[in-house]
Amino acid sequence: MAMLIARRVLSCRSPTTSYFAASFRWYSVDFREEKDTFGPIQVPNDKLWGAQTQRSLQNFEIGGQRERMPEQIIRAFGILKKCAAKVNMEYGLDPSIGKAIMQAAQEVAEGKLNDHFPLVVWQTGSGTQSNMNANEVIANRAAEILGHKRGLKIVHPNDHVNRSQSSNDTFPTVMHIAAAMEINSGLIPKLKELHTTLHSKSIEFKDIVKIGRTHTQDATPLTLGQEFSGYTTQVKYGIDRVLCTLPRIYQLAQGGTAVGTGLNTKRGFDVKIAAAVAEETNLPFVTAENKFEALAAHDAFVETSGALNTIAVSLMKIANDIRFLGSGPRCGLGELILPENEPGSSIMPGKVNPTQCEALTMVCAQVMGNHVVITVGGANGHFELNVFKPVIASNLLHSLKLLGDASASFEKNCVRGIQANRERIAKLLHESLMLVTSLNPKIGYDNAALVAKTAHKQGSTLKEAALKLGVLNSEEFDNLVVPEKMIGPSD
Amino acid sequence: MAMLIARRVLSCRSPTTSYFAASFRWYSVDFREEKDTFGPIQVPNDKLWGAQTQRSLQNFEIGGQRERMPEQIIRAFGILKKCAAKVNMEYGLDPSIGKAIMQAAQEVAEGKLNDHFPLVVWQTGSGTQSNMNANEVIANRAAEILGHKRGLKIVHPNDHVNRSQSSNDTFPTVMHIAAAMEINSGLIPKLKELHTTLHSKSIEFKDIVKIGRTHTQDATPLTLGQEFSGYTTQVKYGIDRVLCTLPRIYQLAQGGTAVGTGLNTKRGFDVKIAAAVAEETNLPFVTAENKFEALAAHDAFVETSGALNTIAVSLMKIANDIRFLGSGPRCGLGELILPENEPGSSIMPGKVNPTQCEALTMVCAQVMGNHVVITVGGANGHFELNVFKPVIASNLLHSLKLLGDASASFEKNCVRGIQANRERIAKLLHESLMLVTSLNPKIGYDNAALVAKTAHKQGSTLKEAALKLGVLNSEEFDNLVVPEKMIGPSD
Amino acid sequence: MAMLIARRVLSCRSPTTSYFAASFRWYSVDFREEKDTFGPIQVPNDKLWGAQTQRSLQNFEIGGQRERMPEQIIRAFGILKKCAAKVNMEYGLDPSIGKAIMQAAQEVAEGKLNDHFPLVVWQTGSGTQSNMNANEVIANRAAEILGHKRGLKIVHPNDHVNRSQSSNDTFPTVMHIAAAMEINSGLIPKLKELHTTLHSKSIEFKDIVKIGRTHTQDATPLTLGQEFSGYTTQVKYGIDRVLCTLPRIYQLAQGGTAVGTGLNTKRGFDVKIAAAVAEETNLPFVTAENKFEALAAHDAFVETSGALNTIAVSLMKIANDIRFLGSGPRCGLGELILPENEPGSSIMPGKVNPTQCEALTMVCAQVMGNHVVITVGGANGHFELNVFKPVIASNLLHSLKLLGDASASFEKNCVRGIQANRERIAKLLHESLMLVTSLNPKIGYDNAALVAKTAHKQGSTLKEAALKLGVLNSEEFDNLVVPEKMIGPSD
Amino acid sequence: MAMLIARRVLSCRSPTTSYFAASFRWYSVDFREEKDTFGPIQVPNDKLWGAQTQRSLQNFEIGGQRERMPEQIIRAFGILKKCAAKVNMEYGLDPSIGKAIMQAAQEVAEGKLNDHFPLVVWQTGSGTQSNMNANEVIANRAAEILGHKRGLKIVHPNDHVNRSQSSNDTFPTVMHIAAAMEINSGLIPKLKELHTTLHSKSIEFKDIVKIGRTHTQDATPLTLGQEFSGYTTQVKYGIDRVLCTLPRIYQLAQGGTAVGTGLNTKRGFDVKIAAAVAEETNLPFVTAENKFEALAAHDAFVETSGALNTIAVSLMKIANDIRFLGSGPRCGLGELILPENEPGSSIMPGKVNPTQCEALTMVCAQVMGNHVVITVGGANGHFELNVFKPVIASNLLHSLKLLGDASASFEKNCVRGIQANRERIAKLLHESLMLVTSLNPKIGYDNAALVAKTAHKQGSTLKEAALKLGVLNSEEFDNLVVPEKMIGPSD
Repeated sequence: MAMLIARRVLSCRSPTTSYFAASFRWYSVDFREEKDTFGPIQVPNDKLWGAQTQRSLQNFEIGGQRERMPEQIIRAFGILKKCAAKVNMEYGLDPSIGKAIMQAAQEVAEGKLNDHFPLVVWQTGSGTQSNMNANEVIANRAAEILGHKRGLKIVHPNDHVNRSQSSNDTFPTVMHIAAAMEINSGLIPKLKELHTTLHSKSIEFKDIVKIGRTHTQDATPLTLGQEFSGYTTQVKYGIDRVLCTLPRIYQLAQGGTAVGTGLNTKRGFDVKIAAAVAEETNLPFVTAENKFEALAAHDAFVETSGALNTIAVSLMKIANDIRFLGSGPRCGLGELILPENEPGSSIMPGKVNPTQCEALTMVCAQVMGNHVVITVGGANGHFELNVFKPVIASNLLHSLKLLGDASASFEKNCVRGIQANRERIAKLLHESLMLVTSLNPKIGYDNAALVAKTAHKQGSTLKEAALKLGVLNSEEFDNLVVPEKMIGPSD
Repeated sequence: MAMLIARRVLSCRSPTTSYFAASFRWYSVDFREEKDTFGPIQVPNDKLWGAQTQRSLQNFEIGGQRERMPEQIIRAFGILKKCAAKVNMEYGLDPSIGKAIMQAAQEVAEGKLNDHFPLVVWQTGSGTQSNMNANEVIANRAAEILGHKRGLKIVHPNDHVNRSQSSNDTFPTVMHIAAAMEINSGLIPKLKELHTTLHSKSIEFKDIVKIGRTHTQDATPLTLGQEFSGYTTQVKYGIDRVLCTLPRIYQLAQGGTAVGTGLNTKRGFDVKIAAAVAEETNLPFVTAENKFEALAAHDAFVETSGALNTIAVSLMKIANDIRFLGSGPRCGLGELILPENEPGSSIMPGKVNPTQCEALTMVCAQVMGNHVVITVGGANGHFELNVFKPVIASNLLHSLKLLGDASASFEKNCVRGIQANRERIAKLLHESLMLVTSLNPKIGYDNAALVAKTAHKQGSTLKEAALKLGVLNSEEFDNLVVPEKMIGPSD
Repeated sequence: MAMLIARRVLSCRSPTTSYFAASFRWYSVDFREEKDTFGPIQVPNDKLWGAQTQRSLQNFEIGGQRERMPEQIIRAFGILKKCAAKVNMEYGLDPSIGKAIMQAAQEVAEGKLNDHFPLVVWQTGSGTQSNMNANEVIANRAAEILGHKRGLKIVHPNDHVNRSQSSNDTFPTVMHIAAAMEINSGLIPKLKELHTTLHSKSIEFKDIVKIGRTHTQDATPLTLGQEFSGYTTQVKYGIDRVLCTLPRIYQLAQGGTAVGTGLNTKRGFDVKIAAAVAEETNLPFVTAENKFEALAAHDAFVETSGALNTIAVSLMKIANDIRFLGSGPRCGLGELILPENEPGSSIMPGKVNPTQCEALTMVCAQVMGNHVVITVGGANGHFELNVFKPVIASNLLHSLKLLGDASASFEKNCVRGIQANRERIAKLLHESLMLVTSLNPKIGYDNAALVAKTAHKQGSTLKEAALKLGVLNSEEFDNLVVPEKMIGPSD
Repeated sequence: MAMLIARRVLSCRSPTTSYFAASFRWYSVDFREEKDTFGPIQVPNDKLWGAQTQRSLQNFEIGGQRERMPEQIIRAFGILKKCAAKVNMEYGLDPSIGKAIMQAAQEVAEGKLNDHFPLVVWQTGSGTQSNMNANEVIANRAAEILGHKRGLKIVHPNDHVNRSQSSNDTFPTVMHIAAAMEINSGLIPKLKELHTTLHSKSIEFKDIVKIGRTHTQDATPLTLGQEFSGYTTQVKYGIDRVLCTLPRIYQLAQGGTAVGTGLNTKRGFDVKIAAAVAEETNLPFVTAENKFEALAAHDAFVETSGALNTIAVSLMKIANDIRFLGSGPRCGLGELILPENEPGSSIMPGKVNPTQCEALTMVCAQVMGNHVVITVGGANGHFELNVFKPVIASNLLHSLKLLGDASASFEKNCVRGIQANRERIAKLLHESLMLVTSLNPKIGYDNAALVAKTAHKQGSTLKEAALKLGVLNSEEFDNLVVPEKMIGPSD
């Protein structure tokens, strides 16, 4: 073990490793011996993990602490292992062991044992090592609960905690549990809040007529409320898109064991465990219709990621519009006044950097890239098992978390406080040349075009040009050129 | 004009341009004058297009003929313009003109006037020029139907053919029509055929027990039918995934005109035209719930592309498995016999290159990339109009067409003819070491492991090792090691 | 054959197939029999291709004519086969046959026989069928040159035209030839022209001081020339980036034959043929340092595509800036006046849609997606051969062609004619608040901030605010607030 | 403050927030007041950061601790701020303050103050808040060094630490410093080690003749050493590819300040600071040729990411090959024996899961996706500033770190220990049918084909078939069929 410590210390030149080392400070702790079929190995005594976790830690020094398996996966393992113990008791697992496992697993589900899950995403592609990490931690903790010492396998990681399970079905199961929970508790409520606020803005702004812009060029008018109603609809559909994918996310692989056949389970185990997870999470999980598909492919994640990619596209558009409409204060479009949350510049009052838009669009770019990761990972499974599980899981959870948090931050720190710069909006609208369209019926297309061309060439208003050309008088002009009548179909 | 021809001839050094020139052979034709607000311009006399089409042709020399707007878009313009004339007659369009437009538009819808649509994808991002191309061709053709000459604007491209429309709502409308038709007539039936054939193979192979493979390594057995049932499920879900996106594809932007407000339309126009298109195509199109979203964003296409991306992921997995399972003939896995469609090699009989798998996986790669194009295009709309319409449309239609055709080719030329190499499958199964699992209950884990280790070290069969070690006799071994009992949960 | 025709006719309901059928009109031609190791097959008599081409045509009905192997690949086959004949004569190929092959291949290289290359990209992943297409066409054409009839194999596609070659080394070779030629004759000169024009604009605009914009918000000033110098630098580096990748594009796989060993070639063949291609194309091709890498991977194409992706990123930024700076005419930024190439709208004079920017940004999106296709294809090779060759080749050539053409179009139809709207630029500059920075040394930070805040709140100019607050007089203000002094470091 | 704490505590239901909260435990600490132009704000007293950092922490609750700005960026800020102080002293900065800043900055560069950099990537897109975080921490630490208390601004974050700088030039500068250091100290040495080991394997295996595989099917032979030489070349070129991009990474934006003009710097500052950074890091940094490009675009990062994407493609291919060649132990290809690092299965001895290949290929997928993030971010800059800086930086550093670490892990835990399964390789080679090629010269093509076909049909060896058919005798066969003569060109 001394050698291991020495190596670690030597390798501290690398920033991440030292960071990593610092965080676990394991050179300062005692060790105990844990065993697996490879033999004994030293494990820090203050940690609940066992031999297989320790081996993974040493064999996969990739990326360091920042790259640890997402917490949502760890917690989902807690839920799953609790449910498995419950169902296994129906099939003969010793109740005292079963209950201890349930209690220990509950602690994992609550995030209380996070520090005992040190493994990174970049491990075996089946997630076996994280499954064993969960088995080992829960076994040791359950043993403690029963009054035994760690490492003695009184509660056995494989025979008891992992009973009737294989990494190959547990990992996809926790992927689905974690994603479904993040979607239901994180993303959807946050998108709904954003939707609500955008909708209320579209009501608030419903009477503000403004210039439209197509090809980034001046076009016919619409109301600011109509403009926001487009954003509102985008977010609404985004929510629908994610919901559409849930039926396949709610399918659990559990019960397929090693290759999808369910070898080493009892008939009915798969249905019972899905029901137990459904009860535990209050989400409508069911057993997967086809376990071979559920192990060998992660199309459901690719699909959900596709929905997130669409949402990222929507939010990128919305955030871009808002920052451009709020650009200025003097030399931009200036139609919106964005809330000022932090100093933009110490010298330029009125300079509000659209920082929430920036954070959100960066998140959108990340989600688009994560989608490619998931696509590549999803496409490269072979035979009975896709072995890109951890990278697929971590990227989907990353996208879900970021989209949810960024939507909430955007809603709270930006959209909610957006004000219309009515004066500026009115000024631009009335200076614009496209209102000339309204003159067609009265003075004919040729004269209307002449008015517009004259105004453009001379830099004057349409009215000035019309009066100068003598095609109609001031009152006539004012009666005809009414942007408020241009914002919908005619009767 | 002479100058133009000279320039074209000189530029023939570039491969594509010469190709392009050759294809239109316009140096050999007469010209007539067409006009737009920019003034007169020479147009080849044997073509129906007008001034705006001609200008686009000269201003966007990007990519040449290969890059022309997809035919499905042209045909959808035919459908839309026919329906618009029909509805416009209800709102006062002169019936003789209206009927001539309907007849001309019908010819466009049937692909009879394809040669008159020379514009490339790489034009204005609203597709305005293709809309004008449709308007000009239909106007000239309708004029001919009414007995007039081309170019006289007896039927006017804007006032008659484009009446109550804007490029900004027609182009998204034809995008949706084209996609919905390609999905319903092309992709879905072809995927269903592939699904049916895969399903029938999973039935055909239901009793063939074979070695499973996880991490590409030998694992516990399953049936070949089970393996194919995974593929079948992937394709089935793929069909579901596309169908899930259709409600948003069936929403038509028509009636939004320039910025989504519907300026210059009459109330009800949007609903009537969606109904007319629905009737014409026999597909459940409706008017878009929010026209601002329908012009400014193409999230519906990003979403559908996400479904196609998922299907590409599925098919990549399936095609990879099939080529690996069919690898050999002597030095690969060799479990499947793939149909031989063309000479693999003139000297190696039995060398069947999995060429259909190769074509399909290349298509899958293309679809994944097209998805990124659509994502980038979808994310970059500004204000009232997304101006990546042509690139989004052409990539989605490309993906739809390729996925459909490649699925059909794969089904017909590969899957349908796959045979199981039963001998090889049995040999591998019985040579494998993982069957040792079955001995555990009888001789205990330690002895079973010893048997396996001995067999592995000595390169013998499990049975040989077991007999040699004397842990059981031949009959006992044969009674215990029965792969057929390992392919499902126990009772 | 009758059956085949019937099937084709029946399948004409599908748009592309009918298009395809129409284009070849093969039901109207005579047929001759051609043979390969699979037996005889009917081939249209007016075509030079042989049995293997015909089989591919029937086995890969994917995408239709639009999806044909890019012309640059066909032409590169002409070059390669000509060189191969030349070198093979040194190694004993009958000179009369050799010369006929060279002549026929020259016709292919010149694009004269394009109609005889009907195969699509979606074929076998080694491109074998296109290699055989080239062999067959050249063999039949060479036979004709020698006075023989087609189909008799007087000149043999394999033994003569393909002598010492395998599809596995010819296809990567033509990929590299085609890419290198397109880069050198298409992309680079067009980017250089764009660079030159941007540079000349940066000179032309060097004295125009304008408001800077960061976070899309008003910032300190710079000159319009400085702004364009950034674009100029981006394009310059883009050229460098592509050039950096050429050393690996100039490496030819030829001589590796089936698996990279060079079996069936004579020592030195690889070097000689690379030299011959170099002489023929006037480009510095060399034989690949490692033929195993050259067949099994297409990292060189992934790398070059990465350079194109970077260029796409640059051009997207430039085109976006130009369209936003040119937005208006009244309600946008309006600092640039873009050339007007076609009617923007029949009623709004001055509405210039930035259509060239739109075409270019759509091309950029396509290039980004094509890059993903190439990445996925490049990553999925197995063992001695990458079998995503056609899709990798067609996407790189697509990107090269589009980027080149779009850059040229953008240069010619947009950048060259850009004018600065000096009046508007000056107005925005002098209205802006950030010029207050210049007052700091004279009146102190607190007073300067007060001036700026006052101006912002009251919507007045800085000068008005300063005079009102009485912190300095008009002359003092004019002496201090000089944007021209804010565009560089101080001495 | 009580309110803030309350809110945090309430929001602890969200997993990440509680994690986050737990990690900073700020509810347990004392607070001090810090100020910025927005007014006073409470800051945890045990932290060195100031008001702007605190605001960002509260305004951007996105992703939590896992999403913190990469440590390499923090350290690079240490380097930059140290150099800036040094150069600023030349331009008049008070030496006692300058030296204290240098000392404090050195601590940041060494990672000693990492805990004082809590901000996430998802902040303002210019990275302003991280720049201010660095300024605030260094200012407070420098003040302490000089014997003052935190928060008094004795050393001022803006006036002293950020002197002559803007976030807009510092952030791109630290991006380049961090990337160049990670490339030079991390990625390149690790790739070189991998290259060396692959090369030594290609030497070790140079005499092992094996079956080649194209289209995943049996093909002509090569040596295992030749096969590994392909991998070696891929890695070698990968190193070249990254090195090719360094000239543009070594260009520093520093001196451009807010918009690229260098306002508020003295002439020569840019060159001096680049020289100082070069000296500090021992890397050839220079000042950027064009500062406008350096702020407004991050093409250099897109380019480098393109090189990493190519390396990911190479490593995906290599790792895939190795896991397939090592598949088995009984039912796969089985040509390679991979090192066994952890239990594959407790019951199947010989089952070695290729876990290092799996971790590596997952990393490759991540790098491909990160590349898309960087591409999207790079393409979406506007005017004088790209505001996707943090997401671009974090993704490039992520890719660099993962590729480096995974290459090292793959080298150490997999490649180094690969052994050839000579027996299996020989068996497959001699069973294969393609060796029949060697018989052509002796018995003619037709007879050779007959031999091969017979062997294939009857499942016999070539020799058995040849003897049975009587076309040659045993000795003749053995003399002719010598795979060792098929691995190169003939003389």
